[in-house]
Amino acid sequence: MKETNKINKKIERTKNNDKPRKEEKVYIMPLGGLEEVGKNSTIIQYRDEIIVIDAGSSFPDENLYGIDLVIPDYNYLEKNKDKVKGLVLTHGHEDHIGAIPYLYQKIDSTVPIYGGKLSIALAMSKFDNFGGISHKPKTYEITNRSVKKIGKYFEVEFIRVTHSIADAYSICINTPAGRIVHTGDFKVDLTPVDNVGFDFQRLAALGEEGVDLLLADSTNSEIPGFTPSERSVGEALRNEFRNAKGRIIVAAFASHIHRLQQIVDVAKETNRKIAIDGRSMVKVFEIATRLGYLEVPKGLMVSLKNVENRKDNEVVILCTGTQGEPLAALSRIAKNMHRHITIREEDTVIISATPIPGNEKAVYSNINNLLKKEAEVVFKKVAGIHVSGHGSQDELKLMLNLIKPKNFMPVHGEYKMLKAHRQLAIECGIPVENIIITENGKKIELTKEYAKEVGKVPSGDVLIDGLGVGDVGNIVLRDRQHLAQDGIVIVVVTISKKTGMIVSGPDIITRGFVYSRESENLINETTKLIKQNLEVHEKNSVTEWNILKGTIKDTASKYLYEETKRNPIILPIIMEV
Amino acid sequence: MKETNKINKKIERTKNNDKPRKEEKVYIMPLGGLEEVGKNSTIIQYRDEIIVIDAGSSFPDENLYGIDLVIPDYNYLEKNKDKVKGLVLTHGHEDHIGAIPYLYQKIDSTVPIYGGKLSIALAMSKFDNFGGISHKPKTYEITNRSVKKIGKYFEVEFIRVTHSIADAYSICINTPAGRIVHTGDFKVDLTPVDNVGFDFQRLAALGEEGVDLLLADSTNSEIPGFTPSERSVGEALRNEFRNAKGRIIVAAFASHIHRLQQIVDVAKETNRKIAIDGRSMVKVFEIATRLGYLEVPKGLMVSLKNVENRKDNEVVILCTGTQGEPLAALSRIAKNMHRHITIREEDTVIISATPIPGNEKAVYSNINNLLKKEAEVVFKKVAGIHVSGHGSQDELKLMLNLIKPKNFMPVHGEYKMLKAHRQLAIECGIPVENIIITENGKKIELTKEYAKEVGKVPSGDVLIDGLGVGDVGNIVLRDRQHLAQDGIVIVVVTISKKTGMIVSGPDIITRGFVYSRESENLINETTKLIKQNLEVHEKNSVTEWNILKGTIKDTASKYLYEETKRNPIILPIIMEV
Repeated sequence: MKETNKINKKIERTKNNDKPRKEEKVYIMPLGGLEEVGKNSTIIQYRDEIIVIDAGSSFPDENLYGIDLVIPDYNYLEKNKDKVKGLVLTHGHEDHIGAIPYLYQKIDSTVPIYGGKLSIALAMSKFDNFGGISHKPKTYEITNRSVKKIGKYFEVEFIRVTHSIADAYSICINTPAGRIVHTGDFKVDLTPVDNVGFDFQRLAALGEEGVDLLLADSTNSEIPGFTPSERSVGEALRNEFRNAKGRIIVAAFASHIHRLQQIVDVAKETNRKIAIDGRSMVKVFEIATRLGYLEVPKGLMVSLKNVENRKDNEVVILCTGTQGEPLAALSRIAKNMHRHITIREEDTVIISATPIPGNEKAVYSNINNLLKKEAEVVFKKVAGIHVSGHGSQDELKLMLNLIKPKNFMPVHGEYKMLKAHRQLAIECGIPVENIIITENGKKIELTKEYAKEVGKVPSGDVLIDGLGVGDVGNIVLRDRQHLAQDGIVIVVVTISKKTGMIVSGPDIITRGFVYSRESENLINETTKLIKQNLEVHEKNSVTEWNILKGTIKDTASKYLYEETKRNPIILPIIMEV
Repeated sequence: MKETNKINKKIERTKNNDKPRKEEKVYIMPLGGLEEVGKNSTIIQYRDEIIVIDAGSSFPDENLYGIDLVIPDYNYLEKNKDKVKGLVLTHGHEDHIGAIPYLYQKIDSTVPIYGGKLSIALAMSKFDNFGGISHKPKTYEITNRSVKKIGKYFEVEFIRVTHSIADAYSICINTPAGRIVHTGDFKVDLTPVDNVGFDFQRLAALGEEGVDLLLADSTNSEIPGFTPSERSVGEALRNEFRNAKGRIIVAAFASHIHRLQQIVDVAKETNRKIAIDGRSMVKVFEIATRLGYLEVPKGLMVSLKNVENRKDNEVVILCTGTQGEPLAALSRIAKNMHRHITIREEDTVIISATPIPGNEKAVYSNINNLLKKEAEVVFKKVAGIHVSGHGSQDELKLMLNLIKPKNFMPVHGEYKMLKAHRQLAIECGIPVENIIITENGKKIELTKEYAKEVGKVPSGDVLIDGLGVGDVGNIVLRDRQHLAQDGIVIVVVTISKKTGMIVSGPDIITRGFVYSRESENLINETTKLIKQNLEVHEKNSVTEWNILKGTIKDTASKYLYEETKRNPIILPIIMEV
């Protein structure tokens, strides 16, 4: 009550004087994207109002079998749901929009979403077949330099940058306590494919006017120089297409619309038709073409089924699978498991991406399989058929020079990347004491005088294990691949909402994990062990689902491995009654 | 008379309406710097007013023996001297200021010079000991974003850029017919040594407001990527200084004050004293220290004479001679001809520059000589001890993105560089029909509607052969080196101002070209031949000095070589009476 009165008084004061006062404070709380690559999401709070920048997901670590997605912990937003005034999107990649429906399970559907047309379309497609959301949120499409008033206090401006997807924006948040610029993901493409460039003029103008805090993408902060223009990939593809004697199979990220456009253009130039394969590729092609982000000449696209009837040198197969995902199109082709495509000696396979760390082995396995079938495989940066969507050191320095922020906070990256980015900022003249390297969940206070860490909010990895998940086709498929190896063990526990006590279970259901007659004993023994361990938690009043789930997993997987030397997927399901 | 009336009418009209009218025209006439590297000078004319951007010199080609300097043809300005309202300097390098005193022989000394403090100081030093100028021009020192009204029409703004000399500016010329931006020489140094950076904000703001024509430096338009920051040289020098066991001898460009500062800083860090050698080095050190562009700690500098008395690992000798100039300090050291310095086995010689095309042989000869004496020689970009002062392709694209000009004209560079720069502009989205590749002396008309070539003015190389030249020490010394080989033959001809007819001569005087008794006949014969050939010109009313001089040179050198197999310097002197 006291608190509320104080705030009201402050509001009174502000009304009398529009200028920011020294004592005004705005808070920045990153929920994801720090000390990691993925699940980017940042809270900005001024008094009783909150905006959220991005709500991204990340892919689970290899050891999180059965987990489809990792999203940020949205407890703080759930508790403060009356304060949340808007969700602002920098762009439409999974690590910036993948958690949106889960976020809306926690906050009101009246909170609107602001973003570019393509980002909005991709974000809204996340709600399709997604349970638990009564109403889809309202959306506002913005364009470059759009300024939106959000809530009573925030004035948010969108400034166009270049990235490996169209419709990417940096975001400038004006609050009575200071101005914050969040770059979003960006590179500085001096010759962008769509001629819709990086808005140097507006970013420099913000720098001229004064920026109190810059949050900037650190992904490539360890890489010297300038990331080559996306346009350079077009040249490299053109060469490969010209040299190819037979069919061309190109694997690319579905979301990389500029890349797809270049493939479309070069296919047309070299008189080839395109057949597409892969769920996400089909989906993005549909959305991007409909919204005008992708221009596909009439008659260029052909059905995958009929592709074998065409002359080899008149065909391009555009597919997913750059990361060696086991059931993606390229992997099925490589393993001779594709319904329509069998690799031939004169085929040229172009992998227009680099492996995300952790995926190297799977990618190289595909390449080896393709090479064994005597296909020509074009891969690696050397060939110029892929460039990063993130700015390297010179581009990060350029951004720092454009914005000239008073305070600087590197975001989006592992710890070593944040540190490397800090070094670049020091070289660009930002005083070291004005640079904040922080963690997910930390609360940063920004005033006209300083920026500093003042506390924390709940944060961490929230694992999505498929319950209530709708359209995550590829991941489900990947799980099936796993299931095909060692099967699945589902452990169901029912917990009382009121007391947090176990009401029934654990009950174990298995599929693909039969072990003849002994299996019954094995399951009984596992059940007993899990129960024992859960009771320890109960005694200590530990009720966090993540911990309970972890205990279930650890107990079951350890015991089952000892007994069977198998690693089934352990899927703990906790139900509240 | 008609013309004047017309202009007056136009002025009337403009008074009534401040907005630029479609029919307003401004003219751009490059006098130097196109299809060449050097002697940069550009005329901007609006109605009856002219400003000149830079007045640079270039070094003579190898075949122009006896020529000290090459300057632009200033005939047009001489004829229109009443119109010239100001000389505007981008920076203080010779190829931008070297022709200034010669320009002032042609125009009124009342024409003021505008430029940065350092540029003005270097420019004014050109008048020392220079004959034929009654009064030095008035100067106005500008700083970043200074706006100067010049004449009735021009409003000129200076915007700071980074280059291999301090106080480098791009220039924005606002005229009633349109806005022109001339980049001057630039690179985009994201981490400049003096922390006085490239003014992205103002350049981007110009782009935002609208620029009708951009003239931009093309020197490195064929080099991909980004030129490394000058700061990277500091790191490389620090390594070399730390590793050096004995003395360090560093050769650098005298005008490169940031480089000198880094050498000073690293010397101090590694507890070494600096002795400087070379006329221009001493001069620039004096000016730059006095004006505050170079900070030298007290007690760091020592006399060259006493350098041999110090411990080897406490000494740095900073000298000229990066280009292998025969009589520069480094060359004398390499050839064992230096009064104070004899090379020793433990010496480290650092050549902190790359050879300008044409100088490679002389530079490599120095290196070979130094290596023969077992000195450690650090050279080439690989070692990181030199970076260019000109922006590479990505920086040129960045400038095009910042300024977003309606029309574009690459300047400062050979034809192939201008062409390469055009290609970059096309990639950045400038329509090919809005790009002008032109030549020295061409007259470009700029309106709000178009930019196009409409005529030409006198232009060409004007050779300065030492008469009336003051402080050109190094060049005189180089000539002496030549003289030491084959001597000199001076041919004096006196011509009537009125008739253009030969009044007396040719008279021949030789030095260092004695050929015992036969020499008398040789000289008589040469005189006769020259006279014959000059009479042919007289008959045809050819009176251009350059042609007459050429004839004298060709005749004398050809005949003398045939007879003696020697190549003395032929110095034609034409005197008017």
